[in-house]
Amino acid sequence: MHAKTPAAVAGHDLTSRTEDLRARFAAMRATTRALAAPLSAEDAMVQSMDDASPAKWHLAHTTWFFERFILAGDVQYRPFDPAWDYLFNSYYNSVGPMHARPRRGLLSRPSLEQVRAYRQHVEARLQQRLHAHALDHAALDILELGIQHEQQHQELLLTDIRHALWSNPLQPAYREDLPGTRAGASPLRWIAREEQIVEIGAASWPAAKDFAYDNESPRHRALVPAHALASRPVSNAEFQAFIDDGGYRTPAPWLSDGWATVQARGWQRPLYWHQDGAREFTLGGWRERDPDAPACGLSLFEADAFARWAGARLPTEAEWEQAATGLAVDGNFIETDALHPQSVPAAETGFAQLFGDVWEWTGSAYLPYPGFAPWPGALGEYNGKFMNAQWVLRGGSCATARNHIRASYRNFFPSDARWQFAGVRLAKDLT
Amino acid sequence: MHAKTPAAVAGHDLTSRTEDLRARFAAMRATTRALAAPLSAEDAMVQSMDDASPAKWHLAHTTWFFERFILAGDVQYRPFDPAWDYLFNSYYNSVGPMHARPRRGLLSRPSLEQVRAYRQHVEARLQQRLHAHALDHAALDILELGIQHEQQHQELLLTDIRHALWSNPLQPAYREDLPGTRAGASPLRWIAREEQIVEIGAASWPAAKDFAYDNESPRHRALVPAHALASRPVSNAEFQAFIDDGGYRTPAPWLSDGWATVQARGWQRPLYWHQDGAREFTLGGWRERDPDAPACGLSLFEADAFARWAGARLPTEAEWEQAATGLAVDGNFIETDALHPQSVPAAETGFAQLFGDVWEWTGSAYLPYPGFAPWPGALGEYNGKFMNAQWVLRGGSCATARNHIRASYRNFFPSDARWQFAGVRLAKDLT
Amino acid sequence: MHAKTPAAVAGHDLTSRTEDLRARFAAMRATTRALAAPLSAEDAMVQSMDDASPAKWHLAHTTWFFERFILAGDVQYRPFDPAWDYLFNSYYNSVGPMHARPRRGLLSRPSLEQVRAYRQHVEARLQQRLHAHALDHAALDILELGIQHEQQHQELLLTDIRHALWSNPLQPAYREDLPGTRAGASPLRWIAREEQIVEIGAASWPAAKDFAYDNESPRHRALVPAHALASRPVSNAEFQAFIDDGGYRTPAPWLSDGWATVQARGWQRPLYWHQDGAREFTLGGWRERDPDAPACGLSLFEADAFARWAGARLPTEAEWEQAATGLAVDGNFIETDALHPQSVPAAETGFAQLFGDVWEWTGSAYLPYPGFAPWPGALGEYNGKFMNAQWVLRGGSCATARNHIRASYRNFFPSDARWQFAGVRLAKDLT
Amino acid sequence: MHAKTPAAVAGHDLTSRTEDLRARFAAMRATTRALAAPLSAEDAMVQSMDDASPAKWHLAHTTWFFERFILAGDVQYRPFDPAWDYLFNSYYNSVGPMHARPRRGLLSRPSLEQVRAYRQHVEARLQQRLHAHALDHAALDILELGIQHEQQHQELLLTDIRHALWSNPLQPAYREDLPGTRAGASPLRWIAREEQIVEIGAASWPAAKDFAYDNESPRHRALVPAHALASRPVSNAEFQAFIDDGGYRTPAPWLSDGWATVQARGWQRPLYWHQDGAREFTLGGWRERDPDAPACGLSLFEADAFARWAGARLPTEAEWEQAATGLAVDGNFIETDALHPQSVPAAETGFAQLFGDVWEWTGSAYLPYPGFAPWPGALGEYNGKFMNAQWVLRGGSCATARNHIRASYRNFFPSDARWQFAGVRLAKDLT
Repeated sequence: MHAKTPAAVAGHDLTSRTEDLRARFAAMRATTRALAAPLSAEDAMVQSMDDASPAKWHLAHTTWFFERFILAGDVQYRPFDPAWDYLFNSYYNSVGPMHARPRRGLLSRPSLEQVRAYRQHVEARLQQRLHAHALDHAALDILELGIQHEQQHQELLLTDIRHALWSNPLQPAYREDLPGTRAGASPLRWIAREEQIVEIGAASWPAAKDFAYDNESPRHRALVPAHALASRPVSNAEFQAFIDDGGYRTPAPWLSDGWATVQARGWQRPLYWHQDGAREFTLGGWRERDPDAPACGLSLFEADAFARWAGARLPTEAEWEQAATGLAVDGNFIETDALHPQSVPAAETGFAQLFGDVWEWTGSAYLPYPGFAPWPGALGEYNGKFMNAQWVLRGGSCATARNHIRASYRNFFPSDARWQFAGVRLAKDLT
Repeated sequence: MHAKTPAAVAGHDLTSRTEDLRARFAAMRATTRALAAPLSAEDAMVQSMDDASPAKWHLAHTTWFFERFILAGDVQYRPFDPAWDYLFNSYYNSVGPMHARPRRGLLSRPSLEQVRAYRQHVEARLQQRLHAHALDHAALDILELGIQHEQQHQELLLTDIRHALWSNPLQPAYREDLPGTRAGASPLRWIAREEQIVEIGAASWPAAKDFAYDNESPRHRALVPAHALASRPVSNAEFQAFIDDGGYRTPAPWLSDGWATVQARGWQRPLYWHQDGAREFTLGGWRERDPDAPACGLSLFEADAFARWAGARLPTEAEWEQAATGLAVDGNFIETDALHPQSVPAAETGFAQLFGDVWEWTGSAYLPYPGFAPWPGALGEYNGKFMNAQWVLRGGSCATARNHIRASYRNFFPSDARWQFAGVRLAKDLT
Repeated sequence: MHAKTPAAVAGHDLTSRTEDLRARFAAMRATTRALAAPLSAEDAMVQSMDDASPAKWHLAHTTWFFERFILAGDVQYRPFDPAWDYLFNSYYNSVGPMHARPRRGLLSRPSLEQVRAYRQHVEARLQQRLHAHALDHAALDILELGIQHEQQHQELLLTDIRHALWSNPLQPAYREDLPGTRAGASPLRWIAREEQIVEIGAASWPAAKDFAYDNESPRHRALVPAHALASRPVSNAEFQAFIDDGGYRTPAPWLSDGWATVQARGWQRPLYWHQDGAREFTLGGWRERDPDAPACGLSLFEADAFARWAGARLPTEAEWEQAATGLAVDGNFIETDALHPQSVPAAETGFAQLFGDVWEWTGSAYLPYPGFAPWPGALGEYNGKFMNAQWVLRGGSCATARNHIRASYRNFFPSDARWQFAGVRLAKDLT
Repeated sequence: MHAKTPAAVAGHDLTSRTEDLRARFAAMRATTRALAAPLSAEDAMVQSMDDASPAKWHLAHTTWFFERFILAGDVQYRPFDPAWDYLFNSYYNSVGPMHARPRRGLLSRPSLEQVRAYRQHVEARLQQRLHAHALDHAALDILELGIQHEQQHQELLLTDIRHALWSNPLQPAYREDLPGTRAGASPLRWIAREEQIVEIGAASWPAAKDFAYDNESPRHRALVPAHALASRPVSNAEFQAFIDDGGYRTPAPWLSDGWATVQARGWQRPLYWHQDGAREFTLGGWRERDPDAPACGLSLFEADAFARWAGARLPTEAEWEQAATGLAVDGNFIETDALHPQSVPAAETGFAQLFGDVWEWTGSAYLPYPGFAPWPGALGEYNGKFMNAQWVLRGGSCATARNHIRASYRNFFPSDARWQFAGVRLAKDLT
């Protein structure tokens, strides 16, 4: 993030770190290219709601990040187009003013082709500098962050394009070749833990070697009360039972704001579920719902209402992290190329699907950890300023890169956000 | 519109009418193609406000009109794509439900290429049927209407794309090759008339031979009071004087709703005028304002406030039509290919620029003429149902086709619409 | 309105004019007092929608009008409370800033008692000056206008309190003692007229002797086309037939904006009609609807849709005025003290209920007459600046003072206003 | 709440408990009467924003609570007016439908006088039953809750009427006789604590003897990290320094939603501060600000931005409760009858003003404690369903009853609420 990264310097050899990042940068950019490949220039321009961005904007903004925060550090560097600074800055007030988010869909210029040229240009310059070993540890830190950042936008590109295509009355598929799998049901078991003091969070990067966002730090002690956690996420069949029981028609299980939202927007089922009760809209178009796959497309309000209806509650993020700590980061990720949550065969013991498939809403508000300090400078705007009226989600989804996620990872969305691959894992108090 | 068009039958020979329409149809479609040519697929998708439509939508909707109201009359005809009916119906409730207007910008599918194929398909079928002389007078009536209809959308395509490009922070030009001309100032003279009963409006088509919209009929007698009408529209320099005199800063000259709008939206000058006081945004990008050219980009509120400030008023539509009747339909039209209002050399006598350059706001509300009857069937929804809270504009603009306009032509927009090529010609009471 | 009123001077003897106005002023104020008498201080404070005002505000604003425009003309005069200028100015920008209209319901202070004291104070001062014959013709002009102005607010006080009480879930009556009468049905006849040039409007007051608002002037010639006008307003039973025929469920009879309004607001019947199909909410509380009484509580949209469904149209204001000219101003007015439209026994010939019972929506937009000039000074803001997107209504209602109305009187409301005593009289084109 | 309150039964003698509650009930009701005494019927009807309620509604709703949840339990009891159930139910969906909150200001009926009669009626009935010792422990539990509930509304009555009077352009005082005191500045000291496991929260009532809301329970262990807490709240002078340093003009110290709010609403200073920089609007009208008194009228956004600007943060609720536990509940409360925060003389050591003066925003979201269970039945809607997008405030204010507050008390408001007596106490991480 900044000049002083003594721990980083100590922990890595500059040459090997450069090589490692070069390879990961190239691979990550190739993934982005592949994700955008099925989209026409027109598809890449749709903004179907204020919260979503056009694919083209994602492609440009992630590139701007590398240009603005790394290349522009070189006084010799001339920006690809200085006017684009205004277009592709997302929310960095300290860097300058920016185009209004709800108007990103108006940007017919620059064209997708120009944005691709921009990507190639910035990529080439960066590779050039990496080849020349011209980036110091501080710059490599930002390169690392830029890779992580673009991985976040890969997921958003997918969730936003799913919403965009669903918003078109023709409701076309993003890809026709996506697999549909069905592995069968797994019984829901409760896994209990006694009260315990645990260490959660990540050591502060870049002082620490392993990347983590500032909002995951510092690593700290937390008191986790006695509780039980479900062995797997709630399935489509289980969520259907909630609907069948009138879940969307009675205020009882809902938070007050949730019930107001249900009524104001006429919610009757998860966002992408068909009223025929059988199908859901996926990146592969309309598909039969797998009753055993994790329910997704849920808002916090729906996840919370389901849990209350089921006589349970949402887990806290500390409970979730305690469960996930030490487990292998394995599951249905973007690399699986299913791009939809899947059922898994019944496991004998332990937790299933903590990582991948669906983000799991927690009952924890998105707040700073004790001792939290945002990164210095403009990048301090990355996470900290959004700590209001949002909830933490954990574990990644079928649209997350496997090497992007970890036990301490904190995703966050407001209570009514429905368009992510977000589901729910139940928890219970033990007394 | 319907089976009974005795006058049409009487007035035309079916064969020669078919040939005439075939040629005009081909020429009109070629114009549309040329207008869309500078636009990329991305440009053609932008919807920069609820009132505007993407160029692609204009291209498809005008084609749908021919398909739905002519080709579909043949039971053998299979629609190009039945799902598109929903997408490209504008507001014909009696034809079926339709995609919401403010969401037209989400239609990445069908692609511009598919829409072009659609255009070719429908054009070819129609030409085939015209070659075969397979259309009767009733169908030719609709063909005539379809030609007129698409000419309206040619103008909207231009005004909407101007707004779209202006809404992009890069503010690119639609075409770089548009001419800038400056012919010099013309003094404003007042042309007076005594009270008179005049005939205005058009004979009801298709009973009458010459096309006119239903809202221009029936031709009827009107009492036009004594008044004087300005010899030319208000110029940019004159409108600048209104601004310099604090026109946008004091409620006095404004209608109450107009002043509320000025304050709520922070209006300080016409829509496309630069705050530098010298330039305006045209289809050719930012250009120096010609002080002698007609002011445009005015809402009714601004036209009316200017007139009051100038000690005058807006003309009624009967006054305007009385002046225009019998004059040649000459001026700066879409065929001029300037696509912006221009100054003209001083004329010795008579009215200048009644046709072309800028639509002229009248002080007449858009209401039915005595004896008005909408066309029968679905096409009765074309004009009549919009007769609420709108004002009539007359004379056509630099974006209107010359053979589309006439003295009796009634255009209409609500009080706050600013994005048309609309200006103002002053009138005065005589006593 | 101003110093020079030579015609007024010529037409009246100052002494007798003073006496006449004194008496009328006293009588008018007594009526206002009586209308407010059934209201508690709390009732008098309710503002149930932005378009309505609290009764207390009506009482104060009408008094402020006399104070500000007459008493304040005397340099010796000290305002009752200078801070109230801001509170009780309605919309006179040239007099100074004002309290926002939608926030009038927040004015617990001044109290109703203080407002009554204010009324007495201003009344006493004015009477004092009238006794002393201290007002010249110009001041008497404003006194005349102030009387007319307060009569308008008498009607608004009634329509606004009806809405206020209806908005309370208890839905109490304004008065329990109002009569319910039922005189029986009258057949609807059509009264035809040939095309004719008529004189409509009023001579400009105060140059002319008889009061009229500036928007009724100048008197001018108008060409009224051949047409037929209904002998009486549309009845409740007739409007019920429209509902029974699905009038609120199909777009066909509606203006486009009207149908959008029906859908957005869920309109299913006139504002005050009960869903039981039998009752309506009156100033006397819930009452059985008299099927033969004129339908009221209609917006322009509903009046217009009914007319189209009935194969007719709304009359123009010139047609209406032609019919009313020369007729006695007789009918069910505020003095009748029924405060609700009533049925009348069948009349042999001629028009019934042109005056009183219900305001009749016309198909004329509210626009200036040829040669219109607003009154000079602040009072020029009275009428002219509202000439946008409103429609003219004619004839007065059961809540209008008899000596307030005349054939040339122009009331105006926007298309969706429903809370007035407004109904519809049909017209037809003749060919 | 319900039949089973064994602990309550065990802990109290029914007779003495009845006597104790009778006395407290009478005293509490007397306080409410006194608070309402300065208000006219008109003042008591104002609703100046959706979040506030009219005083009359507070008076009625608190009475309805006793009637509906205690008296109505007796099958013999006939409601004072069954129609009022709908009017005065606040948000208990399980009890039935209710009048919309933003429309409470329309209730001119019932009158304030009728509401006072209602209060007397219910009070008398309840006293009768208490005299007769006719209420069992379960009913006494609800009586206890009803007392606490009305105390909350006493505070809201004051904060809502302050907003109501401030919204009136006359900006009158609620009471002219309120004292202004100024005791002098107290230096801000930091009081540090090492990491510690503490017990916070209250034992579950009514099983436990002492009243607490369900959201304060269960009592549970929490790990409080090392930190320092300020000895007193932030003063007006300190908050002024934030303003003077451009606090409201730069995004840096603000949460992203906070900065958007500042811009959208044009915030430039705390809600009730005058632009003259010297005065603030109090229940005693406009008064000079005491620079040493705690700043109040702050939203969470402002409290949080101030803390960040000051290089500190908001305390968590556990940190706050750890500090307050064991301290005497002493301070400037409603009984002080100052009704405004006051400065206090410098204290030698320890915390000042933890209780009373101003509610202190914490950095803790309003969430359930581990093991939280809402009360059974309708009263379970009291607290739990609001646990979304709100923040906890602690310590009570100058408008809180002394016997209503305690160390474990959790108040909550959303991030943009400004009209409470809410201020800020700073905290810091220790490392």
